[in-house]
Amino acid sequence: MLKEQLAKIQPVSESWIAKARTRLDNLTKPRGSLGFLEDLAARYVAIREKERPAIRAKDVFVFVGDHDVVAEGVSAYPQEVTALMVRNFLAGGACINVLARCAKAMVSIVDVGMIEDLPEAPDLIRRNVARGAQNIAAGPAMTLRQAETAIAVGIEMAERASAGGSSIIATGEMGIGNTTPSTALFAHLLPAGVEDLTGKGTGLDEQGLQSKIRVVQRALKINRDSLGDPLAALAALGGLEIAAICGLCLGGAANRLAVVVDGFISSAGALVAMRLKPEVRDYLFFSHQSLERGHLIFFQKEQIRPILDLDMRLGEGTGAVIGMQILEDAVRIYNEMATFQEVGIEPGA
Amino acid sequence: MLKEQLAKIQPVSESWIAKARTRLDNLTKPRGSLGFLEDLAARYVAIREKERPAIRAKDVFVFVGDHDVVAEGVSAYPQEVTALMVRNFLAGGACINVLARCAKAMVSIVDVGMIEDLPEAPDLIRRNVARGAQNIAAGPAMTLRQAETAIAVGIEMAERASAGGSSIIATGEMGIGNTTPSTALFAHLLPAGVEDLTGKGTGLDEQGLQSKIRVVQRALKINRDSLGDPLAALAALGGLEIAAICGLCLGGAANRLAVVVDGFISSAGALVAMRLKPEVRDYLFFSHQSLERGHLIFFQKEQIRPILDLDMRLGEGTGAVIGMQILEDAVRIYNEMATFQEVGIEPGA
Repeated sequence: MLKEQLAKIQPVSESWIAKARTRLDNLTKPRGSLGFLEDLAARYVAIREKERPAIRAKDVFVFVGDHDVVAEGVSAYPQEVTALMVRNFLAGGACINVLARCAKAMVSIVDVGMIEDLPEAPDLIRRNVARGAQNIAAGPAMTLRQAETAIAVGIEMAERASAGGSSIIATGEMGIGNTTPSTALFAHLLPAGVEDLTGKGTGLDEQGLQSKIRVVQRALKINRDSLGDPLAALAALGGLEIAAICGLCLGGAANRLAVVVDGFISSAGALVAMRLKPEVRDYLFFSHQSLERGHLIFFQKEQIRPILDLDMRLGEGTGAVIGMQILEDAVRIYNEMATFQEVGIEPGA
Repeated sequence: MLKEQLAKIQPVSESWIAKARTRLDNLTKPRGSLGFLEDLAARYVAIREKERPAIRAKDVFVFVGDHDVVAEGVSAYPQEVTALMVRNFLAGGACINVLARCAKAMVSIVDVGMIEDLPEAPDLIRRNVARGAQNIAAGPAMTLRQAETAIAVGIEMAERASAGGSSIIATGEMGIGNTTPSTALFAHLLPAGVEDLTGKGTGLDEQGLQSKIRVVQRALKINRDSLGDPLAALAALGGLEIAAICGLCLGGAANRLAVVVDGFISSAGALVAMRLKPEVRDYLFFSHQSLERGHLIFFQKEQIRPILDLDMRLGEGTGAVIGMQILEDAVRIYNEMATFQEVGIEPGA
């Protein structure tokens, strides 16, 4: 399943990028004057391989998983908040719900690794792979098989979105404690130093931060013999929702969807996908730079430019949905603006 | 008229900011985790002084004026492009039209200083004050009386938007050559060095840039005895659309509207408004940092944080309308998110 998906992922074609740039240069504006928006639009055209690639629907998937590493005191919130927030998502009262309404995107909540077994609900997709990731400071987060199954859930969601007519999908997540496995993954996969990468998550104090650094270091040490390839590292250090995000990125790329990546945790899942298949990068739009300090290191090391920098650090997919709005703006500019020829102006500079 | 408007502008109240912050801290998210979006929302609440300040309508005003200083070779495009682009706006084919459709904002094109006298059209508001600003490298751009009249046009538009139910308005402009008067205004009002401030506008080459620097220096020198106060400086160095933008900022603040400011040229108009009445600043939301190099100096000197940095340099109001979307996102988050009490979670950190 995973091998098949990886084989399907092709880099976007340079000739489609060039074709898009030609049109962008002919639109009634000084050449290049829309800056980064032009890059976003050109890449979207090349992903979709259509002359005028309309956006009909947009989906955001909020993958949810728990983390037994919270027992080490790495989060400002207790583990129960994961399920309480999921109830909030299902009731439409969370930030991701509001932003999805603003952006006219559909929100699906995907239980991939929650401890609590929630009853059926309209926007809940039940794909529980395990009742929480194990404590990474004491051993692996999950088995290889579980990691693959969680990745498959992400791939399934990308296929579902594609079948439903979406061309842009966004990653989101909820899981108390999940900046810790994300930090461990960044440390191993970038690589980068744990002290530099570790941030305060949802609100640790300085003492909590020092303790979190030691927890990440223990996780890397205890799992050091299980980090041989990106999939193994994901299973050892990750979380079920992080694996599903990795799958959504892979499935999005395999189905030629634009994938808008949320913040720190989503980027960890995206990084695993990029390590499994570098070409997936062509399909990813990193929406914002989180205040979580390691995120900047990720962007610098991978030479990626995020769309926004608003000091957000909420997760859920909130930054991604704002990024989606800007990507849609860029695509509509591409599709709808008049050309110089149409209005009788010489293109000029 | 102007004095009366200035007297109406009050700083936003600290108690409304505090009230908004209390609600933001009670929303179901870690405290402060929406970063800059929380600042935007709190300021909007304080501007509107309402518990749940809905956004019903949004207006963007594209003020148009010509500049005889283009005779000095300061622009990559000929002067006729001003009117050609206005026809493009009126036909709905320009970037500002597309973005306004994305953001569900209404676009009005306001002739305040065009050379060409356009016939009536549905989205055109004809308030021509002069047939182009005079060459600032040879003397003043306009008379004090013309500057006041153009400011009054901007104020009128703010009042019109307010009467029509808008609570957010955006500045936009079109006018071949208008980075030159804007640069001259920044140089005088910030103040800052002409060499540091001057940029390539819509696409000058290095030689054109050096020549533009000399033109701005001549404008400052020849008008040096007419720069005694901000209004005099505007009349000497500005343009009619820049004066109208100044008026829109003042009228927006006087009517307690949120004013989203576009890029380099709009910021020059906003700066004049801020020098006429510092409290106007509380009502301004600077949407983006333009690639035009002087814009960064403006933000640094005035200690203002723009919402976006997308390397845009198009004007028209394009950055402002994207900024408007983000401001609306922030306000809807404020209005629509559930509180901790409502979902039964302890606020935590």
